[in-house]
Amino acid sequence: MIFRQFFDATSSTYTYLIARRPGAEALLIDPVIEKTDEYVTLIGELGLKLVLSMDTHVHADHITATGKLGQETGCRTGIGEKSSVEWIDVRFRDNEVIDIDGLKIKAMHTPGHTDDSYSYLLDGRVFTGDTLLIRSTGRTDFQCGDSYAQYDSLFNRLLKLPESTTVYPAHDYKGWTSSTIGEEKAYNPRLQVSSPEEYAEIMDNLNLPRPKLIDIAVPANLKCGLP
Amino acid sequence: MIFRQFFDATSSTYTYLIARRPGAEALLIDPVIEKTDEYVTLIGELGLKLVLSMDTHVHADHITATGKLGQETGCRTGIGEKSSVEWIDVRFRDNEVIDIDGLKIKAMHTPGHTDDSYSYLLDGRVFTGDTLLIRSTGRTDFQCGDSYAQYDSLFNRLLKLPESTTVYPAHDYKGWTSSTIGEEKAYNPRLQVSSPEEYAEIMDNLNLPRPKLIDIAVPANLKCGLP
Repeated sequence: MIFRQFFDATSSTYTYLIARRPGAEALLIDPVIEKTDEYVTLIGELGLKLVLSMDTHVHADHITATGKLGQETGCRTGIGEKSSVEWIDVRFRDNEVIDIDGLKIKAMHTPGHTDDSYSYLLDGRVFTGDTLLIRSTGRTDFQCGDSYAQYDSLFNRLLKLPESTTVYPAHDYKGWTSSTIGEEKAYNPRLQVSSPEEYAEIMDNLNLPRPKLIDIAVPANLKCGLP
Repeated sequence: MIFRQFFDATSSTYTYLIARRPGAEALLIDPVIEKTDEYVTLIGELGLKLVLSMDTHVHADHITATGKLGQETGCRTGIGEKSSVEWIDVRFRDNEVIDIDGLKIKAMHTPGHTDDSYSYLLDGRVFTGDTLLIRSTGRTDFQCGDSYAQYDSLFNRLLKLPESTTVYPAHDYKGWTSSTIGEEKAYNPRLQVSSPEEYAEIMDNLNLPRPKLIDIAVPANLKCGLP
Protein backbone atom coordinates (compact mmCIF):
# COMPACT_ATOMS: atom_id res chain seq x y z
CA MET A 1 0.00 0.00 0.00
CA ILE A 2 1.07 3.59 -0.59
CA PHE A 3 0.60 5.68 2.52
CA ARG A 4 1.92 9.21 2.85
CA GLN A 5 1.48 11.66 5.68
CA PHE A 6 2.09 15.36 4.98
CA PHE A 7 2.44 18.14 7.53
CA ASP A 8 1.39 21.74 6.90
CA ALA A 9 3.49 23.76 9.32
CA THR A 10 1.31 26.89 9.09
CA SER A 11 -1.82 25.21 10.47
CA SER A 12 -0.14 22.09 11.95
CA THR A 13 -2.43 19.98 9.75
CA TYR A 14 -1.78 16.39 8.70
CA THR A 15 -2.93 15.26 5.28
CA TYR A 16 -2.97 11.64 4.10
CA LEU A 17 -2.50 10.15 0.63
CA ILE A 18 -3.58 6.53 0.32
CA ALA A 19 -3.57 4.06 -2.56
CA ARG A 20 -3.45 0.32 -2.90
CA ARG A 21 -0.31 0.28 -5.03
CA PRO A 22 1.63 2.41 -7.56
CA GLY A 23 -0.58 3.14 -10.54
CA ALA A 24 -3.82 2.65 -8.62
CA GLU A 25 -6.68 4.95 -7.66
CA ALA A 26 -5.85 7.26 -4.77
CA LEU A 27 -7.56 9.10 -1.93
CA LEU A 28 -6.60 12.28 -0.06
CA ILE A 29 -7.85 13.07 3.44
CA ASP A 30 -7.81 16.66 4.77
CA PRO A 31 -5.72 18.34 2.05
CA VAL A 32 -4.57 21.95 2.55
CA ILE A 33 -5.13 24.40 -0.31
CA GLU A 34 -1.62 25.88 -0.29
CA LYS A 35 -0.18 22.39 -0.87
CA THR A 36 -2.36 21.52 -3.87
CA ASP A 37 0.47 21.65 -6.39
CA GLU A 38 2.65 19.40 -4.22
CA TYR A 39 -0.07 16.75 -3.98
CA VAL A 40 -0.73 16.85 -7.71
CA THR A 41 2.98 16.55 -8.50
CA LEU A 42 3.50 13.59 -6.17
CA ILE A 43 0.34 11.83 -7.35
CA GLY A 44 1.65 12.17 -10.91
CA GLU A 45 5.10 10.92 -9.98
CA LEU A 46 3.62 7.86 -8.28
CA GLY A 47 1.46 7.19 -11.33
CA LEU A 48 -1.69 7.40 -9.21
CA LYS A 49 -5.13 8.54 -10.25
CA LEU A 50 -6.74 10.73 -7.60
CA VAL A 51 -10.37 9.66 -7.45
CA LEU A 52 -11.49 11.20 -4.15
CA SER A 53 -10.47 14.11 -1.94
CA MET A 54 -12.32 14.36 1.34
CA ASP A 55 -12.34 16.12 4.68
CA THR A 56 -13.07 14.94 8.19
CA HIS A 57 -15.13 18.10 8.85
CA VAL A 58 -15.42 21.78 7.95
CA HIS A 59 -12.06 23.02 9.18
CA ALA A 60 -11.65 26.35 10.99
CA ASP A 61 -7.86 26.65 10.77
CA HIS A 62 -7.01 26.14 7.09
CA ILE A 63 -8.77 26.13 3.74
CA THR A 64 -9.36 22.71 2.24
CA ALA A 65 -7.81 21.81 -1.12
CA THR A 66 -10.69 19.44 -1.84
CA GLY A 67 -12.63 21.76 -4.16
CA LYS A 68 -9.53 22.88 -6.03
CA LEU A 69 -8.40 19.28 -6.46
CA GLY A 70 -11.83 18.41 -7.81
CA GLN A 71 -11.55 21.18 -10.39
CA GLU A 72 -7.93 20.49 -11.33
CA THR A 73 -7.89 16.70 -11.39
CA GLY A 74 -11.52 15.72 -11.88
CA CYS A 75 -11.54 13.74 -8.63
CA ARG A 76 -14.72 13.47 -6.62
CA THR A 77 -15.08 15.64 -3.52
CA GLY A 78 -16.38 14.12 -0.30
CA ILE A 79 -17.38 14.92 3.28
CA GLY A 80 -19.81 13.54 5.85
CA GLU A 81 -23.51 14.13 5.20
CA LYS A 82 -23.84 16.37 8.26
CA SER A 83 -21.71 19.06 6.58
CA SER A 84 -23.58 21.79 4.70
CA VAL A 85 -20.86 22.22 2.11
CA GLU A 86 -21.38 23.22 -1.52
CA TRP A 87 -19.55 21.58 -4.44
CA ILE A 88 -19.53 18.17 -2.80
CA ASP A 89 -20.00 15.06 -4.93
CA VAL A 90 -20.22 12.42 -2.21
CA ARG A 91 -21.77 12.82 1.25
CA PHE A 92 -20.92 9.90 3.51
CA ARG A 93 -23.48 8.41 5.83
CA ASP A 94 -22.46 7.02 9.21
CA ASN A 95 -20.99 3.53 8.72
CA GLU A 96 -20.91 3.91 4.93
CA VAL A 97 -17.99 2.07 3.36
CA ILE A 98 -16.04 3.85 0.63
CA ASP A 99 -14.24 1.62 -1.87
CA ILE A 100 -11.05 2.95 -3.46
CA ASP A 101 -9.70 0.32 -5.80
CA GLY A 102 -10.46 -2.38 -3.24
CA LEU A 103 -9.41 -0.39 -0.16
CA LYS A 104 -12.40 -0.21 2.17
CA ILE A 105 -12.74 2.97 4.23
CA LYS A 106 -15.56 3.20 6.74
CA ALA A 107 -16.97 6.64 7.60
CA MET A 108 -17.87 7.01 11.28
CA HIS A 109 -19.88 10.02 12.42
CA THR A 110 -17.99 11.19 15.51
CA PRO A 111 -19.48 14.59 16.40
CA GLY A 112 -18.30 16.76 19.24
CA HIS A 113 -15.48 18.95 17.95
CA THR A 114 -18.08 20.03 15.38
CA ASP A 115 -21.47 18.51 14.65
CA ASP A 116 -20.15 17.37 11.25
CA SER A 117 -16.97 15.55 12.41
CA TYR A 118 -16.34 12.14 10.87
CA SER A 119 -13.54 9.66 11.41
CA TYR A 120 -12.42 7.29 8.67
CA LEU A 121 -11.41 3.71 9.43
CA LEU A 122 -9.11 1.76 7.10
CA ASP A 123 -7.70 -1.62 7.97
CA GLY A 124 -6.00 -1.00 11.34
CA ARG A 125 -5.73 2.77 10.93
CA VAL A 126 -8.20 5.43 11.95
CA PHE A 127 -8.12 9.01 10.69
CA THR A 128 -9.68 10.84 13.59
CA GLY A 129 -9.77 14.42 12.34
CA ASP A 130 -10.05 16.75 15.34
CA THR A 131 -12.12 14.31 17.39
CA LEU A 132 -9.20 12.38 18.88
CA LEU A 133 -5.76 14.00 18.86
CA ILE A 134 -2.53 12.55 20.25
CA ARG A 135 -2.85 12.97 24.03
CA SER A 136 -5.58 15.53 23.44
CA THR A 137 -9.01 16.03 21.86
CA GLY A 138 -10.43 18.73 19.61
CA ARG A 139 -12.00 21.76 21.28
CA THR A 140 -15.79 21.87 21.43
CA ASP A 141 -16.53 25.58 21.73
CA PHE A 142 -17.54 26.55 18.17
CA GLN A 143 -19.24 25.20 15.01
CA CYS A 144 -21.91 23.43 17.08
CA GLY A 145 -19.25 21.70 19.16
CA ASP A 146 -20.64 19.62 22.03
CA SER A 147 -18.49 18.04 24.71
CA TYR A 148 -21.18 15.47 25.59
CA ALA A 149 -21.44 14.36 21.98
CA GLN A 150 -17.65 14.19 21.84
CA TYR A 151 -17.53 12.04 24.96
CA ASP A 152 -19.92 9.65 23.26
CA SER A 153 -17.89 9.66 20.01
CA LEU A 154 -14.69 9.00 21.95
CA PHE A 155 -15.76 6.48 24.55
CA ASN A 156 -18.52 4.65 22.68
CA ARG A 157 -17.01 4.58 19.21
CA LEU A 158 -13.31 5.38 18.79
CA LEU A 159 -12.04 3.83 22.02
CA LYS A 160 -13.98 0.65 21.20
CA LEU A 161 -11.77 0.04 18.18
CA PRO A 162 -9.00 -2.55 18.70
CA GLU A 163 -6.25 -1.12 20.91
CA SER A 164 -3.65 -1.76 18.22
CA THR A 165 -5.43 0.56 15.74
CA THR A 166 -3.06 3.33 14.67
CA VAL A 167 -4.45 6.82 15.23
CA TYR A 168 -3.73 9.42 12.55
CA PRO A 169 -5.14 12.79 13.60
CA ALA A 170 -5.74 15.94 11.55
CA HIS A 171 -3.36 17.93 13.73
CA ASP A 172 -0.49 17.72 16.12
CA TYR A 173 1.27 20.64 17.73
CA LYS A 174 4.36 18.98 19.18
CA GLY A 175 5.62 16.88 16.27
CA TRP A 176 4.13 13.48 17.06
CA THR A 177 2.88 11.78 13.92
CA SER A 178 0.73 8.88 15.15
CA SER A 179 -0.50 7.00 18.20
CA THR A 180 -2.70 4.00 18.92
CA ILE A 181 -6.16 3.59 20.42
CA GLY A 182 -4.63 1.64 23.32
CA GLU A 183 -2.17 4.42 24.09
CA GLU A 184 -4.80 7.13 23.99
CA LYS A 185 -7.13 5.12 26.18
CA ALA A 186 -4.38 4.75 28.75
CA TYR A 187 -2.49 8.04 28.53
CA ASN A 188 -4.59 10.76 26.90
CA PRO A 189 -5.12 13.08 29.89
CA ARG A 190 -8.59 14.11 28.72
CA LEU A 191 -9.77 10.51 28.58
CA GLN A 192 -8.98 9.68 32.19
CA VAL A 193 -12.50 10.64 33.28
CA SER A 194 -15.34 8.57 34.62
CA SER A 195 -18.39 10.42 33.29
CA PRO A 196 -19.58 12.68 30.46
CA GLU A 197 -20.00 15.45 33.04
CA GLU A 198 -16.38 15.18 34.11
CA TYR A 199 -15.28 15.36 30.46
CA ALA A 200 -17.52 18.37 29.80
CA GLU A 201 -16.06 20.08 32.87
CA ILE A 202 -12.56 19.78 31.32
CA MET A 203 -13.67 20.92 27.87
CA ASP A 204 -15.73 23.85 29.16
CA ASN A 205 -12.74 25.28 30.98
CA LEU A 206 -10.03 25.19 28.30
CA ASN A 207 -10.25 28.97 27.73
CA LEU A 208 -8.60 28.75 24.30
CA PRO A 209 -8.14 31.78 22.06
CA ARG A 210 -10.42 32.06 19.04
CA PRO A 211 -8.78 30.40 15.97
CA LYS A 212 -7.05 33.11 13.93
CA LEU A 213 -8.45 32.03 10.58
CA ILE A 214 -11.95 30.92 11.59
CA ASP A 215 -13.74 33.85 9.92
CA ILE A 216 -11.93 33.15 6.67
CA ALA A 217 -11.60 29.37 6.75
CA VAL A 218 -15.13 28.33 7.71
CA PRO A 219 -16.94 30.39 5.03
CA ALA A 220 -14.36 29.25 2.46
CA ASN A 221 -14.67 25.61 3.49
CA LEU A 222 -18.48 25.79 3.31
CA LYS A 223 -17.81 26.35 -0.40
CA CYS A 224 -15.29 23.48 -0.45
CA GLY A 225 -12.41 25.98 -0.51
CA LEU A 226 -13.51 27.43 -3.86
CA PRO A 227 -13.69 31.20 -4.41
CA MET B 1 6.79 -3.44 15.25
CA ILE B 2 6.62 -0.10 16.99
CA PHE B 3 7.74 2.70 14.71
CA ARG B 4 7.34 6.37 15.56
CA GLN B 5 8.49 9.42 13.67
CA PHE B 6 8.80 12.72 15.55
CA PHE B 7 9.27 16.15 14.05
CA ASP B 8 11.15 18.98 15.75
CA ALA B 9 9.71 22.14 14.19
CA THR B 10 12.59 24.36 15.33
CA SER B 11 15.25 22.51 13.36
CA SER B 12 12.91 20.55 11.02
CA THR B 13 14.52 17.34 12.33
CA TYR B 14 12.96 13.89 12.19
CA THR B 15 13.65 11.47 15.02
CA TYR B 16 12.74 7.78 14.97
CA LEU B 17 11.77 5.41 17.79
CA ILE B 18 11.89 1.74 16.88
CA ALA B 19 11.16 -1.44 18.80
CA ARG B 20 10.12 -4.95 17.95
CA ARG B 21 6.96 -4.87 20.09
CA PRO B 22 5.51 -3.27 23.24
CA GLY B 23 7.71 -4.11 26.21
CA ALA B 24 10.80 -4.74 24.08
CA GLU B 25 14.17 -3.04 23.79
CA ALA B 26 14.07 0.21 21.82
CA LEU B 27 16.30 2.37 19.67
CA LEU B 28 16.24 6.13 18.96
CA ILE B 29 17.80 7.66 15.85
CA ASP B 30 18.69 11.38 15.75
CA PRO B 31 16.97 12.55 18.94
CA VAL B 32 16.78 16.31 19.69
CA ILE B 33 17.81 17.47 23.16
CA GLU B 34 14.78 19.72 23.75
CA LYS B 35 12.50 16.70 23.25
CA THR B 36 14.27 14.40 25.72
CA ASP B 37 11.45 14.39 28.27
CA GLU B 38 8.87 13.59 25.58
CA TYR B 39 10.87 10.57 24.38
CA VAL B 40 11.37 9.30 27.92
CA THR B 41 7.67 9.68 28.72
CA LEU B 42 6.53 7.85 25.59
CA ILE B 43 9.10 5.09 26.01
CA GLY B 44 7.78 4.58 29.55
CA GLU B 45 4.15 4.59 28.41
CA LEU B 46 4.90 1.97 25.75
CA GLY B 47 6.70 -0.16 28.33
CA LEU B 48 9.88 -0.07 26.25
CA LYS B 49 13.46 -0.22 27.46
CA LEU B 50 15.66 2.25 25.58
CA VAL B 51 18.93 0.40 24.96
CA LEU B 52 20.53 2.60 22.27
CA SER B 53 20.36 6.23 21.17
CA MET B 54 22.35 7.04 18.07
CA ASP B 55 22.93 9.73 15.48
CA THR B 56 23.49 9.60 11.75
CA HIS B 57 26.30 12.17 12.04
CA VAL B 58 27.47 15.17 14.07
CA HIS B 59 24.58 17.55 13.44
CA ALA B 60 25.05 21.29 12.82
CA ASP B 61 21.45 22.41 13.29
CA HIS B 62 20.39 20.98 16.63
CA ILE B 63 21.93 19.46 19.72
CA THR B 64 21.57 15.70 20.02
CA ALA B 65 19.72 14.18 22.98
CA THR B 66 21.89 11.06 22.78
CA GLY B 67 24.26 11.97 25.64
CA LYS B 68 21.45 13.15 27.90
CA LEU B 69 19.44 10.01 27.19
CA GLY B 70 22.49 7.94 28.04
CA GLN B 71 22.79 9.70 31.39
CA GLU B 72 19.09 9.66 32.20
CA THR B 73 18.11 6.19 31.04
CA GLY B 74 21.36 4.23 31.05
CA CYS B 75 21.01 3.46 27.33
CA ARG B 76 24.12 3.08 25.22
CA THR B 77 25.13 5.96 22.96
CA GLY B 78 26.14 5.28 19.37
CA ILE B 79 27.46 6.92 16.22
CA GLY B 80 29.57 5.89 13.22
CA GLU B 81 33.26 5.28 13.87
CA LYS B 82 34.29 8.24 11.69
CA SER B 83 32.82 10.69 14.23
CA SER B 84 35.23 12.13 16.81
CA VAL B 85 32.58 12.37 19.51
CA GLU B 86 33.19 11.98 23.24
CA TRP B 87 30.89 9.99 25.56
CA ILE B 88 30.10 7.39 22.91
CA ASP B 89 29.70 3.74 23.91
CA VAL B 90 29.36 2.15 20.48
CA ARG B 91 31.11 3.25 17.28
CA PHE B 92 29.65 1.51 14.23
CA ARG B 93 31.85 0.29 11.44
CA ASP B 94 30.66 0.35 7.83
CA ASN B 95 28.35 -2.63 7.26
CA GLU B 96 28.21 -3.47 10.95
CA VAL B 97 24.88 -4.96 11.99
CA ILE B 98 23.31 -3.71 15.21
CA ASP B 99 20.90 -6.10 16.95
CA ILE B 100 18.07 -4.59 19.01
CA ASP B 101 16.02 -7.44 20.42
CA GLY B 102 16.20 -9.26 17.11
CA LEU B 103 15.80 -6.19 14.87
CA LYS B 104 18.85 -6.03 12.61
CA ILE B 105 20.04 -2.55 11.66
CA LYS B 106 22.95 -2.24 9.25
CA ALA B 107 25.19 0.84 9.49
CA MET B 108 26.31 2.13 6.08
CA HIS B 109 29.05 4.75 5.88
CA THR B 110 27.62 7.29 3.42
CA PRO B 111 29.97 10.30 3.61
CA GLY B 112 29.46 13.51 1.67
CA HIS B 113 27.23 15.80 3.71
CA THR B 114 29.90 15.31 6.37
CA ASP B 115 32.75 12.84 6.44
CA ASP B 116 31.06 11.04 9.34
CA SER B 117 27.60 10.55 7.79
CA TYR B 118 26.06 7.09 8.18
CA SER B 119 22.77 5.68 6.97
CA TYR B 120 20.98 2.91 8.86
CA LEU B 121 19.15 0.15 7.03
CA LEU B 122 16.36 -1.82 8.70
CA ASP B 123 14.19 -4.29 6.85
CA GLY B 124 12.86 -2.23 3.94
CA ARG B 125 13.49 1.16 5.55
CA VAL B 126 16.59 3.31 5.34
CA PHE B 127 17.34 6.20 7.68
CA THR B 128 19.43 8.41 5.47
CA GLY B 129 20.35 11.27 7.81
CA ASP B 130 21.32 14.29 5.69
CA THR B 131 22.80 12.21 2.87
CA LEU B 132 19.56 11.66 0.98
CA LEU B 133 16.64 13.98 1.65
CA ILE B 134 13.21 13.91 0.01
CA ARG B 135 13.77 15.43 -3.45
CA SER B 136 17.04 16.90 -2.18
CA THR B 137 20.41 15.98 -0.66
CA GLY B 138 22.37 17.37 2.27
CA ARG B 139 24.69 20.30 1.59
CA THR B 140 28.38 19.50 1.35
CA ASP B 141 30.04 22.81 2.22
CA PHE B 142 31.13 22.31 5.85
CA GLN B 143 32.30 19.62 8.32
CA CYS B 144 34.53 18.01 5.69
CA GLY B 145 31.63 17.76 3.28
CA ASP B 146 32.57 16.44 -0.15
CA SER B 147 30.20 16.39 -3.10
CA TYR B 148 32.20 13.67 -4.88
CA ALA B 149 32.04 11.42 -1.82
CA GLN B 150 28.31 12.15 -1.59
CA TYR B 151 27.80 11.23 -5.24
CA ASP B 152 29.45 7.90 -4.50
CA SER B 153 27.33 7.37 -1.35
CA LEU B 154 24.16 8.18 -3.26
CA PHE B 155 24.69 6.44 -6.56
CA ASN B 156 26.81 3.51 -5.49
CA ARG B 157 25.19 2.70 -2.17
CA LEU B 158 21.78 4.21 -1.37
CA LEU B 159 20.30 4.13 -4.86
CA LYS B 160 21.37 0.49 -5.18
CA LEU B 161 18.95 -0.49 -2.44
CA PRO B 162 15.65 -2.00 -3.65
CA GLU B 163 13.44 0.70 -5.17
CA SER B 164 10.64 -0.11 -2.72
CA THR B 165 12.85 0.76 0.29
CA THR B 166 11.20 3.56 2.31
CA VAL B 167 13.44 6.58 2.83
CA TYR B 168 13.28 8.25 6.23
CA PRO B 169 15.52 11.34 6.26
CA ALA B 170 16.79 13.41 9.20
CA HIS B 171 15.07 16.53 7.87
CA ASP B 172 12.36 17.82 5.66
CA TYR B 173 11.43 21.44 5.14
CA LYS B 174 8.09 21.15 3.37
CA GLY B 175 6.23 18.61 5.52
CA TRP B 176 6.85 15.38 3.61
CA THR B 177 7.52 12.52 5.98
CA SER B 178 8.92 9.74 3.79
CA SER B 179 9.79 8.68 0.26
CA THR B 180 11.19 5.62 -1.48
CA ILE B 181 14.50 4.87 -3.20
CA GLY B 182 12.66 4.40 -6.50
CA GLU B 183 10.99 7.80 -6.22
CA GLU B 184 14.21 9.60 -5.36
CA LYS B 185 16.06 7.89 -8.18
CA ALA B 186 13.40 9.05 -10.63
CA TYR B 187 12.38 12.45 -9.28
CA ASN B 188 15.02 13.90 -6.95
CA PRO B 189 16.25 16.84 -9.06
CA ARG B 190 19.81 16.54 -7.76
CA LEU B 191 20.05 12.92 -8.83
CA GLN B 192 19.23 13.51 -12.49
CA VAL B 193 22.93 13.85 -13.34
CA SER B 194 25.23 11.68 -15.40
CA SER B 195 28.58 12.20 -13.66
CA PRO B 196 30.17 13.08 -10.32
CA GLU B 197 31.37 16.32 -11.88
CA GLU B 198 27.84 17.34 -12.83
CA TYR B 199 26.67 16.58 -9.30
CA ALA B 200 29.56 18.56 -7.80
CA GLU B 201 28.69 21.48 -10.06
CA ILE B 202 25.18 21.58 -8.56
CA MET B 203 26.39 21.22 -4.98
CA ASP B 204 29.17 23.80 -5.34
CA ASN B 205 26.69 26.44 -6.47
CA LEU B 206 23.94 26.17 -3.86
CA ASN B 207 25.06 29.39 -2.11
CA LEU B 208 23.27 28.50 1.11
CA PRO B 209 23.48 30.67 4.24
CA ARG B 210 25.62 29.40 7.10
CA PRO B 211 23.50 27.29 9.53
CA LYS B 212 22.42 29.53 12.40
CA LEU B 213 23.37 27.13 15.18
CA ILE B 214 26.52 25.58 13.72
CA ASP B 215 28.91 27.26 16.15
CA ILE B 216 26.86 26.04 19.09
CA ALA B 217 25.59 22.69 17.81
CA VAL B 218 28.79 21.17 16.41
CA PRO B 219 30.95 21.75 19.53
CA ALA B 220 28.06 20.52 21.71
CA ASN B 221 27.51 17.43 19.56
CA LEU B 222 31.22 16.60 19.61
CA LYS B 223 30.55 16.07 23.34
CA CYS B 224 27.40 14.07 22.56
CA GLY B 225 25.25 17.05 23.55
CA LEU B 226 26.53 17.01 27.14
CA PRO B 227 27.63 20.25 28.86
